Formats: sequence, structure tokens, C-alpha cells
Amino acid sequence: MTTPQPDLARFSINHETVRQLSLPGLAEACARVGVTQVGLWREPVQQYGLAAAARLVRDAGLTVTSLCRGGFLTAPDPAARRRALDDNRAALDEAAALGTSTLVLVSGGLPAGSRDLAGARERVADALAALCDDARDRGVRLAIEPLHPMFASDRCVVSTLDQALDLAERFPAGQVGVVVDTYHLWWDDRAPEQIARAGRGDRIAAFQLADWVTPLPEGALLGRGQLGDGCVDLRGFRRLVDAAGYRGPVEVELFNSRLWERDGTEVLAETAERYRQHALEPAAPEGLSSM
Amino acid sequence: MTTPQPDLARFSINHETVRQLSLPGLAEACARVGVTQVGLWREPVQQYGLAAAARLVRDAGLTVTSLCRGGFLTAPDPAARRRALDDNRAALDEAAALGTSTLVLVSGGLPAGSRDLAGARERVADALAALCDDARDRGVRLAIEPLHPMFASDRCVVSTLDQALDLAERFPAGQVGVVVDTYHLWWDDRAPEQIARAGRGDRIAAFQLADWVTPLPEGALLGRGQLGDGCVDLRGFRRLVDAAGYRGPVEVELFNSRLWERDGTEVLAETAERYRQHALEPAAPEGLSSM
Repeated sequence: MTTPQPDLARFSINHETVRQLSLPGLAEACARVGVTQVGLWREPVQQYGLAAAARLVRDAGLTVTSLCRGGFLTAPDPAARRRALDDNRAALDEAAALGTSTLVLVSGGLPAGSRDLAGARERVADALAALCDDARDRGVRLAIEPLHPMFASDRCVVSTLDQALDLAERFPAGQVGVVVDTYHLWWDDRAPEQIARAGRGDRIAAFQLADWVTPLPEGALLGRGQLGDGCVDLRGFRRLVDAAGYRGPVEVELFNSRLWERDGTEVLAETAERYRQHALEPAAPEGLSSM
Repeated sequence: MTTPQPDLARFSINHETVRQLSLPGLAEACARVGVTQVGLWREPVQQYGLAAAARLVRDAGLTVTSLCRGGFLTAPDPAARRRALDDNRAALDEAAALGTSTLVLVSGGLPAGSRDLAGARERVADALAALCDDARDRGVRLAIEPLHPMFASDRCVVSTLDQALDLAERFPAGQVGVVVDTYHLWWDDRAPEQIARAGRGDRIAAFQLADWVTPLPEGALLGRGQLGDGCVDLRGFRRLVDAAGYRGPVEVELFNSRLWERDGTEVLAETAERYRQHALEPAAPEGLSSM
């Protein structure tokens, strides 16, 4: 069993950050480092077996803070749309079985040949309407994740927290929320006011950290920076979500091919240490603790 | 001398699109294709010689629609800041000598080690204040170009048209305007209302076209798509700037290493044809012209 570290009480490691680890390897690394929360992805869970994965995390004393990912809801043709909805219902079942109340949704990009961003966003809204009762029935919240605008064409037509909230607010807060991810939002001067808006409406379903580093690699996907290596004011974002009333987990999700080449437990320990340094409040200087 | 093509009356080719051409080669290609307007870059002009370049374009009957680029105004230390201001004054002189009233400004990214986007944007405002009288004296307008948010850390802390207008509107419209570039703004659902705002204030100093294609290449810089190859509603953007009252040139600026490998005149002809197809109104169907 894990011996939790007090300053890691809100810390959660997303499995993709240490994807070189199997699910049992992840549980073991968490126990060594003192981490009690994990964000999981559907594919490794399915490969390991849903029931076995649920048992594994339960036996390890781990809390699953989110399941990634549902979504990809922008297909216009009815058959593809039906398949997408069915797949998202399966993802809701998987989230419930793992004991997490958060299913992260990446909305999907533009269909091939389309130039209609607004239309694609409306299809996301339609899909949310079709899914939100299923989410309620399973006790899981659909968490719309705005991705960086550089992914708008091929992954996610929801690019800003404003857009995510405009979608979410059409539905009850208990059924549809948003993901605040520093990697996607750091550049946006409207993010602070939108985080406050999300907090007022109790819409913050997840808070994820990653740093921004350049140059971007080809395809832009696998270049997320280890906390502290880039230019994102991570502590500032953590303060913003705290000020907005969020008290939930702080999940670190790094897609970074260099991190995947290293020992997974070492990367987890490094990530936890970076979280302490760059996301938490600085420790009081020595000698001040008795003041 | 160039025989202008009526449907290319507003078309301008940015030299970077066909950077394989020398300045005389560019003038010759324009004459062949029927293009009468060019956007120029400082480095090739300086290499050719400013006075010689000015004479070349004048003798060729070409109008220079913009000079790229000034900017890089975010350095905090006084010496670097002074050098940047001096360099921008030189760029204003060059613009005036070439007969263009538009100097495109790319604001610059975050200084090394900084996480203070808001502070960097304020330094851009300070620099504009220092430069705008120089711009007025030379009859040149400073044109703030918002770049795609994926360039926010290393090239340009001004990422949206809102931000560019918030900066520009602190100064007289004749001295500071904005660039509307489809590549940088296509993903933003606020772009239409911000283009209208820019039009109301007479702030649109330049309108540039490029298409968005994926995957992005390493570094993200050289992946701009030929018009029609991507997912940007180019005609829709042209209609928006027209509806906002803009009557100026439509400049095509593609940084695309594949286009640079081809014959420059062929690329120019292709670009002009794509402009006709994707930016102008569709021609009336045959037989309807007499109705």
C-alpha cells in the first residue's frame, strides 16, 4: 500500500506521462513515490481488462481521478455519429467501473474536407445532449477539454475555455463540466476570467498541468514540457483554479517522448518533485516556521 | 511592364511565398503572371540595396503593399530595447523608401526564462508609444500582427485579434493598425466580431491569406498551406474584411518549404489561380451572365 505524501495530497499522475509503465507497474511506482491518484486511459485499461484494472487500482489504494478519453463527436454522417455515441457510452461505463466521476472528452476535429468549424462545434453540442442522461445515470461527468488552437483542425474544434463553457453551460453542471489544462490555455489572456466563470458555475471537472516548451516536434503532439522546463506560470494557474473554488486533484499529463525513454518510476518521482516546486506555494524559509 | 489581370486587382504576392526568386526575378514573374502588388521582406531588400530595390519595383510598376517586418519589442533590458527601437525606426525608413505605408510588426516572444506574458505585452505597448510618432513622420503605419497561439512563447506574445486591437486602439488609427492573417486567426470564433471592430475603427492595415494544413512540421513555422489545400474558409474571411469596410490589398504569404523547391514563377501563377478560386466570389455559371 501507498504511504501518501502530505504535499502530494492533490497530485495525480496521468498514465500517459509514464506510459512506459504497465498498469501494475504504475501502481507499484505510485506506492514507491507516495502518489495515491492516477488518471487512466482507456486503451491500456481495455488491454489489461476493465474488471482487473478496477481491482488493481482498488487493491493498491489508488483513486482514479479521470478517464481519458471520450469524444470525437464531430462526424456528420449518421453511422459514424452513432458509433461515436456508442463508444462514448462504453467509456462512461468504463469510468464508472473504475470509480472515477470524470470522463475527459476531446471533441474531435474537422471532418475531412470541411471548413465549417461552427458546424462541427454544434455537432459536439448535439452529442452532449444525447449523452448527458447516460452520464447522469452512471454518476460520471462529461468533461469538455479545450485543446490548444493548433489542434483545431485535426483533434479538437473546442479551442478555448470560453467555447468549452459555452457548450457545457447548456447542460446541468453535474453532468457536463470542463477541463482546465495549462498546456492548452496558458497563452490566453481570457483564461483567468474564464476560470473564474467555470468556478462560479461549478464546472471545473479536472485540472491538468503541463509546461510549454519549444521547438514543437513534428505533428506538435509529443512536445509537452516537464513542469518547470517551460514558460507556463503553473503556480499562477493553480492559484486561479483554487481561487475559483476548485478543490479537486491536480493531474500532470505530459505527452513527451523523451520522458517515455526513461525509467518510469524515476519520471514519476521527478514529476512529483517538479509539482512541489512549481505548482505548490513555496515553502516558508527556514526559521520562519515558528513566527 | 505588367499587364494587370482585372481579377487580380487586389492580389498581392508576399515575397516569402516565392523566396526562391531574387527581387528582379520576382518582378519578372509578376509581369508574366499579371501581378502588380508585392509584399517585401527587409533582408532581401537590404541585400539588394534599398535604393536599388525601390527603383526596381518602381520601374516594374509594382506597388509594395507591406514591408515585413519590424517588432521584437519584448526585451526587458534597456540596451536590447534601445536596439530594437532603433531597428524599427530603420524599418520605418525602409518602408517609406519602398513607398509602402504598412510596416508589419511581429511583437516578439517571451524573454528567456520569463513566464510573464502580460508584462511582455505591456512592453510592446510601451514600444509602440515610443515608435508611433516616428511612424507618423514617415507616413507609415505600424501594423500589429497577431500570430497563432502556438507562437506565443518564441515569436509573438500577441495571439488574437482582440489583443492586437487592445494594443492598437491606444494610438491613433493612422499610426497603428492590425494585420488580419487567416493562418493565425482561422480557429478563433471571436475573429468575425473582432474583424468588424477593426473595420469600425479603420484599423485593418493588411489582410493576408494562408491555409491551415496538418501535420505541422517540426518547429511549426514552415507548414502554411497553399490556398485551398487546407481547412480555412478563405472566401469567408475575405467577405468579413470586405464587410468591415476594408478595400486594400489581399496578400498571400505562405511559408512553405515545398513551394520553395519549385519554380518560382510557376508557384506564383498557381497562387494567383488559387486566389481566384478560393478567395474571390465564384464566377456566375455559364449562360447566366445575360440574365
